[in-house]
Amino acid sequence: MTDALRALFCPKSIAVVGASASPGKAGNAMVRSLLGFPGPLHLVNPTAPEIEGRAVARSIGAIGEPVELAVLVVPAEAVPSALEDCGAAGVRAAVVCAGGFAEAVGGRQLQAEVAEVVARHGVRLLGPNTSGFMNPVDQVLANFVPYVTRLEPGPASIVASSGGMNLAISFLASGEGLGLRVGVGLGNSVDVGFAEVLDFLADDDTTKVIGLHLEGVDDGRALFDAIARVAPRTPIVALKVGRADVGEFALSHTGRLLGDYDVTRAALTQAGAVVVDDVGQLVDAMRALVMCRMAPRAEPGIGVVTAQAGPGLFITDVLRSRNVSVPSLADTTVKGLERLLPPLTMLSNPVDTGRPSETFGKVLGLVADDDEVDALVVYALKESDVVNPEVAFRTPGVVGQVPVVFGTSGPREALDLGRRVVAGIGVPQYPTPEQAARAACALVEDSRAQARRAAGVIAASKSVPALPEQRLDEHLSKLLLDALGVVTPARRVCADRAAAHAALGALDAPVVVKVLDPAIAHKEHAGGVKVGIETEAQLDAALDAIDAIASSSSRGYLVETHVEPGVDLLVGGARDLVWGPVVAVGPGGRDAEAHRPSWRLAPLSDLDVAELAADVAVWPVIRAVEALLLAHPSISEIDVNPVRLLSDGAVALDALILRDEEA
Amino acid sequence: MTDALRALFCPKSIAVVGASASPGKAGNAMVRSLLGFPGPLHLVNPTAPEIEGRAVARSIGAIGEPVELAVLVVPAEAVPSALEDCGAAGVRAAVVCAGGFAEAVGGRQLQAEVAEVVARHGVRLLGPNTSGFMNPVDQVLANFVPYVTRLEPGPASIVASSGGMNLAISFLASGEGLGLRVGVGLGNSVDVGFAEVLDFLADDDTTKVIGLHLEGVDDGRALFDAIARVAPRTPIVALKVGRADVGEFALSHTGRLLGDYDVTRAALTQAGAVVVDDVGQLVDAMRALVMCRMAPRAEPGIGVVTAQAGPGLFITDVLRSRNVSVPSLADTTVKGLERLLPPLTMLSNPVDTGRPSETFGKVLGLVADDDEVDALVVYALKESDVVNPEVAFRTPGVVGQVPVVFGTSGPREALDLGRRVVAGIGVPQYPTPEQAARAACALVEDSRAQARRAAGVIAASKSVPALPEQRLDEHLSKLLLDALGVVTPARRVCADRAAAHAALGALDAPVVVKVLDPAIAHKEHAGGVKVGIETEAQLDAALDAIDAIASSSSRGYLVETHVEPGVDLLVGGARDLVWGPVVAVGPGGRDAEAHRPSWRLAPLSDLDVAELAADVAVWPVIRAVEALLLAHPSISEIDVNPVRLLSDGAVALDALILRDEEA
Repeated sequence: MTDALRALFCPKSIAVVGASASPGKAGNAMVRSLLGFPGPLHLVNPTAPEIEGRAVARSIGAIGEPVELAVLVVPAEAVPSALEDCGAAGVRAAVVCAGGFAEAVGGRQLQAEVAEVVARHGVRLLGPNTSGFMNPVDQVLANFVPYVTRLEPGPASIVASSGGMNLAISFLASGEGLGLRVGVGLGNSVDVGFAEVLDFLADDDTTKVIGLHLEGVDDGRALFDAIARVAPRTPIVALKVGRADVGEFALSHTGRLLGDYDVTRAALTQAGAVVVDDVGQLVDAMRALVMCRMAPRAEPGIGVVTAQAGPGLFITDVLRSRNVSVPSLADTTVKGLERLLPPLTMLSNPVDTGRPSETFGKVLGLVADDDEVDALVVYALKESDVVNPEVAFRTPGVVGQVPVVFGTSGPREALDLGRRVVAGIGVPQYPTPEQAARAACALVEDSRAQARRAAGVIAASKSVPALPEQRLDEHLSKLLLDALGVVTPARRVCADRAAAHAALGALDAPVVVKVLDPAIAHKEHAGGVKVGIETEAQLDAALDAIDAIASSSSRGYLVETHVEPGVDLLVGGARDLVWGPVVAVGPGGRDAEAHRPSWRLAPLSDLDVAELAADVAVWPVIRAVEALLLAHPSISEIDVNPVRLLSDGAVALDALILRDEEA
Repeated sequence: MTDALRALFCPKSIAVVGASASPGKAGNAMVRSLLGFPGPLHLVNPTAPEIEGRAVARSIGAIGEPVELAVLVVPAEAVPSALEDCGAAGVRAAVVCAGGFAEAVGGRQLQAEVAEVVARHGVRLLGPNTSGFMNPVDQVLANFVPYVTRLEPGPASIVASSGGMNLAISFLASGEGLGLRVGVGLGNSVDVGFAEVLDFLADDDTTKVIGLHLEGVDDGRALFDAIARVAPRTPIVALKVGRADVGEFALSHTGRLLGDYDVTRAALTQAGAVVVDDVGQLVDAMRALVMCRMAPRAEPGIGVVTAQAGPGLFITDVLRSRNVSVPSLADTTVKGLERLLPPLTMLSNPVDTGRPSETFGKVLGLVADDDEVDALVVYALKESDVVNPEVAFRTPGVVGQVPVVFGTSGPREALDLGRRVVAGIGVPQYPTPEQAARAACALVEDSRAQARRAAGVIAASKSVPALPEQRLDEHLSKLLLDALGVVTPARRVCADRAAAHAALGALDAPVVVKVLDPAIAHKEHAGGVKVGIETEAQLDAALDAIDAIASSSSRGYLVETHVEPGVDLLVGGARDLVWGPVVAVGPGGRDAEAHRPSWRLAPLSDLDVAELAADVAVWPVIRAVEALLLAHPSISEIDVNPVRLLSDGAVALDALILRDEEA
């Protein structure tokens, strides 16, 4: 597989099918992008006499020597037959730039044809509907945007849903000194997709960091597993679009649904990627991770050293807002700092040196040496007369001891020069305090993710009761939870009013009376939940009200003992279209939908469970939901809401389990 | 006042007190920063024979000619006497760089001395504890950071709490083509503060946009009023530190409390500033506002035109996530687009042109002409062979018709050149889609803020009942609300159990029984609220439980009719240390503190009230809280929680009003 993608991204020979002599046409731009390719470059056009001063073959079959990669710059309707020709000519991989496939009205059939042709010939296909890819290291610039020839080679690889985002990210990274190994725009990804490219990049010794841009994902589990395989070796930073509702536009772009934003971000994090919020953060995080990845740690501590308090405040603010530890320094560290610094400023963590002096490097060394400090964020304005960052960072016990992230401001030329200088000793530099702090957060999140993956052993699945044939009402749903160790209130299922009255006598008052009818999913909303029932008269009134609810199905009553007030959570399960079985924990109660729960893909490690709920009493509920989802593929949704936290445990007050046909 | 600050920021003559010949010392760096000053520059040092080749005066009194601005680079303990000398010599304004005043242990007394000296002599003071200020337009670079001589002059002014942040922001802006008018680091701001500098800048014809950096604020109302005065004329962008808990560090920086982050941001927005989240956004927003401020509109619509769908998705995502309208285009617009563009892409809003052609400018013109579109965000990768942004933007009906914000990516040199070119026609350019989108959000927020200020007439305050002498329990608090038109549940105050039983008979059952005891602020938590009481026995049990609560004060019971379930809000009022009377509305109920309510400074306009709560039923509660806060300065806090929203109105279920001594 890796070998097949080598023919795509690092081919020995290339043909441009649809090469054009007309400036401004994509078929001409593609040729000019590829002119620097050191191997054989063939141009294919049925009529043009010559293009950019080169000979032209009439067809790919007429080239007369083997071609590894064909780059197709022909209209959508011409793609299937062109790929047929490629297959016949023994081409191993192809890029199709044209749009007009699944993303366009009426284009799904054409895309299916493309898929069939490449599968039949064993041609590996990138696209369609992409501007292509760029591999500046091997000078394979298979992209019709002219400026790709200016991209710097380097250690960063980009895998983007969108050809445009691949370019936007690659240029930004290159402009900030982070050169490109391979930048790939997947487009409609009929054949080559995220997971396979990730595995290729993991085997590629030149790639030292990977950036992902995701719109929709076809096979979430394959991507999850690929990230989990690759991230321990090569750090991965991921950016997902779709915080707001932009699904319609996305569909028109690559013909793919965006998927749930929160679930996708949770899945990427769980797999071991560092998830960021925008393109700038993506490049900033990649620049940090390629220079100074941290060792796996459950809770790394950051030492902040600043020459100016104002920017240092922002750094600390960002770190603390993102729950990154800025630990207090040891007394010995503080005493050491007191010998180096004037008594005017803050000397714990953050450490404010005030206007720096020749002691700045020693200050960094002292803080780096503190047991609680796993990385440094350093801020100092460019002040040529008082501090040379490179010299300070080279102080023994600083760089090499811990990762160092540097924030600074000054004239642009001084910043650019300084960035290159400190990059030479493995220190990423950023032009704002927040960018430096967020880059440090990326290091921390990567460190935590790797620690989590290492610790996150998945326990063997437990035995799960079979599902009854009939539709699952609240009682049957709770029986399943009971069997899996979840505490539910004492209750009686009552077929008629007499049974309900008997239940009132048998259970501790007050009781709750609920309609028992699987057709009524939102019982409370329907008026089917009556609380605080203590007397026969109250019970009759409650039953009257429940009987008055309009519904056609057969019906009973559920009488339960009252549970005292407490904090309510929601524990849910769902079968996500992209990611499969997922478990959610969030604030519970009637407005639970207004909150955004935390998500994890099942199966869950103990760490996943602990991260979902700090309170151990909730863990059996989470495990029960997980077990049901994993054991019974027919279950599409589980809502245990509320799960009430009491001083002596957690009780599942309500439960709803839906199967596919019922959802 | 403005005239006094002119002597500070645009002086005719300058003296550096504490000038030094030693490279690396602040007193030397300050001299070198000021060497380019075109007016008389005097250096003061008691011993140095010459400094940087210039003559030195032994004291400020020995200069022998008038000095408008004295820049003091002397140790903290020497500052009071140096200022005394300045005052005696007729100096009009001074900058004090030294730290070691209110921010340092034992420095408050020294700061008080400084305040006394400058007040007595009428010397206007910037600082202490600041690196100074920069005025590149007049070459007054009164700052000891050497690179300030490289700052470009221009239309942007910065007013920063922190001298370091003033520099960080100024350099960043200058590096992105936004030159500096005046950049001010206020430091401890013993004398000159935010409000006064804002008024100075409003009168300054060179300043076209103002950036604020805030740590703590002394007089929130003065700042609020200054922003409200200045922003209609000159756009203001504001950045506040302190999202997380960084107060201890801040205190060590300028000796000032940070104040509440949410309240401060709300106040800045309400006053008319555009509030941003980080330094990068501050500069990006200033670059947009200085080029293409929008007219005031309550709900401006953005047209998004993109040559690449991927970046266009991020732009739309950011706009929608920030509740900025991306309206559907008129049918005529879409029909026009269909004539200009291939049928492959999205042609409503966003408009995805696909790889652009010579029609790109016409597409922009069509979208700009749509009635719903008040500004354009345009994205196109640098593709030298297919689109020239400047030419496209110059298409009739584009620039000039609406503000245009441009996002692009490409090689850095091409970006830099392009940025300068399009800036020449009033189009700000950004290197990532999100930055372009957020800059457009800043234009929208400024437009909305100005519309809001214009529409936000403050009604005359209504008559408010007097406060009783005794401590306000729930009943007395509710009586005040009743008098102001708030609906509260029918209730009886019961001095003893007999009265409670009588109340049960008189009110509609079920009733709620509450402990009535101003000493118990958290009644529910204390077990002092019993719901669902219908029978005498239930009532007795409830009264027993309430009587069992430990408390020393005299006590009664409040018996109230039950109110059906509904959505619960919190309406609160407080007297903020910085901002004075503020009103809050947020999710209600027992975990209200876990949510972050929305805040507004009182008095409130009708628009403020409508923004706090969409439901008109809540408005009387908000107005009541506001009126009580404004009429009774002794009230420190009001909590009406929950306010229950029902189908036919809102009911204040609980109320707590605290006075200063009780809080």
